[in-house]
Amino acid sequence: MSELWSPFVHGLVPYVPGEQPKLAKLVKLNTNENPYGPSPAVLDAVRAATNEDLRRYPDPNADALKQAIAGYYAVPVDHVFVGNGSDEVLAHAFMGFFQHDKPILFADITYSFYKVYCGLYGIDYECVPLDDMYGINVADYARPNGGIIIANPNAPTGCLLSLTSIEALLQANMQSVVLVDEAYIDFGGETAIGLVSRYPNLLVTQTLSKSRSLAGLRIGFAVGQPHLIEALERIKNSFNSYPLDRLAIVAGVAAFRDEDYFQQTRQAVIAGRDAVVSGLQALGFSVLPSAANFVLAQHAVQPAAALASALREQGIIVRYFNAPRIDNFLRITIGKPEENAELLQALQAIVANR
Amino acid sequence: MSELWSPFVHGLVPYVPGEQPKLAKLVKLNTNENPYGPSPAVLDAVRAATNEDLRRYPDPNADALKQAIAGYYAVPVDHVFVGNGSDEVLAHAFMGFFQHDKPILFADITYSFYKVYCGLYGIDYECVPLDDMYGINVADYARPNGGIIIANPNAPTGCLLSLTSIEALLQANMQSVVLVDEAYIDFGGETAIGLVSRYPNLLVTQTLSKSRSLAGLRIGFAVGQPHLIEALERIKNSFNSYPLDRLAIVAGVAAFRDEDYFQQTRQAVIAGRDAVVSGLQALGFSVLPSAANFVLAQHAVQPAAALASALREQGIIVRYFNAPRIDNFLRITIGKPEENAELLQALQAIVANR
Repeated sequence: MSELWSPFVHGLVPYVPGEQPKLAKLVKLNTNENPYGPSPAVLDAVRAATNEDLRRYPDPNADALKQAIAGYYAVPVDHVFVGNGSDEVLAHAFMGFFQHDKPILFADITYSFYKVYCGLYGIDYECVPLDDMYGINVADYARPNGGIIIANPNAPTGCLLSLTSIEALLQANMQSVVLVDEAYIDFGGETAIGLVSRYPNLLVTQTLSKSRSLAGLRIGFAVGQPHLIEALERIKNSFNSYPLDRLAIVAGVAAFRDEDYFQQTRQAVIAGRDAVVSGLQALGFSVLPSAANFVLAQHAVQPAAALASALREQGIIVRYFNAPRIDNFLRITIGKPEENAELLQALQAIVANR
Repeated sequence: MSELWSPFVHGLVPYVPGEQPKLAKLVKLNTNENPYGPSPAVLDAVRAATNEDLRRYPDPNADALKQAIAGYYAVPVDHVFVGNGSDEVLAHAFMGFFQHDKPILFADITYSFYKVYCGLYGIDYECVPLDDMYGINVADYARPNGGIIIANPNAPTGCLLSLTSIEALLQANMQSVVLVDEAYIDFGGETAIGLVSRYPNLLVTQTLSKSRSLAGLRIGFAVGQPHLIEALERIKNSFNSYPLDRLAIVAGVAAFRDEDYFQQTRQAVIAGRDAVVSGLQALGFSVLPSAANFVLAQHAVQPAAALASALREQGIIVRYFNAPRIDNFLRITIGKPEENAELLQALQAIVANR
């Protein structure tokens, strides 16, 4: 604490990301990274761009990347905003759309960064409880609000909300921005981007960190009508002209061009999820229905915190949240088949020994 | 404009960066990039890191880069903060240190992003006029303030403030953060980092975009005592856990290791500046004394705006600011010897023909 700080900093509670251990040999199933590397075409493109042009600033508008995204989703290029990971895109969206005199709404169990953004920008919020099945009931959101944010599929539950439900939410909240955070959508859901042309209050965010295997390069984007994109551009251009570096832009463009690789790795993750779910159920876990590249699971008798510690001792890291309603769950990222097998084998031994 | 925007967005006036033209053949002397590419060791390191590990998040703390910077400047690692270019570092510093009930102070002619940050965070400011020689007179800053920011050397003037003057400013303002923005310091000044251990109110920012030739990778940093660094970390971790990607971290580390290349290219730019200054003076320009990789120059009779247009027609881009007190100046980045010669030749022809 220091009196040199701006006063609000004293109350700031930052987000705590999942551990990025520096040991190489761990089975790392804690931060929802893709078990498969980026497309070889992406690596080639990055290597080719690693030249003396790095002395120059990137295109501040990252037009090439916006065009690639617009082309992929068949939207006009002025409907696309890009940023340094979807975390930065979300931060700008919270600042640009959610500072009204009513609280914003999000689920009681969802991406824990949402509360942190509210703290950063002084935004009031109300948490709307998930139902008993850990699903979102849109009727619960029928209350005055300055904005709504839905992670779809939700994290850390993995549960998917239907586009019909999202559309109901949009229709009931034409005076608020409804932000749909689709970080994990490619692993089992249908994107809401197709609704953008009909709903001026819809902003959809996505990331290349998960389904495109590019967490290491920090690329996120938003799709919305131009009046929403303009607010994001104003904020971005008042904060940092060039949040995406030259290599990230090149990588993002190449990633959207390699559809075959994207489909292959996406399907492999989905198949891996099916195997993990079956394996966990056979060991006495109940698993929430997941449309993401992770599952949230609890054991019938073994406490989650103890399981997480026991796995850690065997070099397997999963994520445990010491938070209401989910403090007896493990969030487990889907790995490669051999990693998934190692996880299940370790859990089997732990469960049997207790 | 949209009523879905947070109200402050309506009044937001973003920063306008120098043009990044998409034509290849231009002599680009408008955004103070280094004419020499990054160290070959940097390119090698980036290529080596372009592998399947890009599927993983970067180290959120970028410890390797912090250690490289701390080692280079012989400060403890907890004195170092890193971000996505010094623009992002400055944004966090404005948010974290300058939201007090008194206005912050900066020069009337300086980096135009400072006003933009004030707009973004609702910070009051007062501009302190440079003296008649376009220098900073620290006595002019003896007034109540919520913080002070000095670009040293200043941009777009290039003029250097002595460490003695900076120390006077620090001593007179122990209740405010004095931020010294040293984007261009390596081209002719002495860094204030050596003062950090004695002044708890000093924060120094630098960038790898200029003297380290890495504008394309977006790496900036700040050095200050831990209580200041903590505020920046809190804000960063409430905004975006991983603003520096894996390749940027690797590049930054490699850049600080190749001291020979740094010294060679730095000295080449300084020699180029001497040649440009002499050449401009011979053509009837007056040039402000520059410690940066650019010069601010005005011609005795030719208006700057017309000169900039005429240069542009010949494929040479320099920066012209249509702003009070400097609207008859050109800001010219130092290029390679052949680019500098081309500039001077073009100016000679333009000046002779009028």
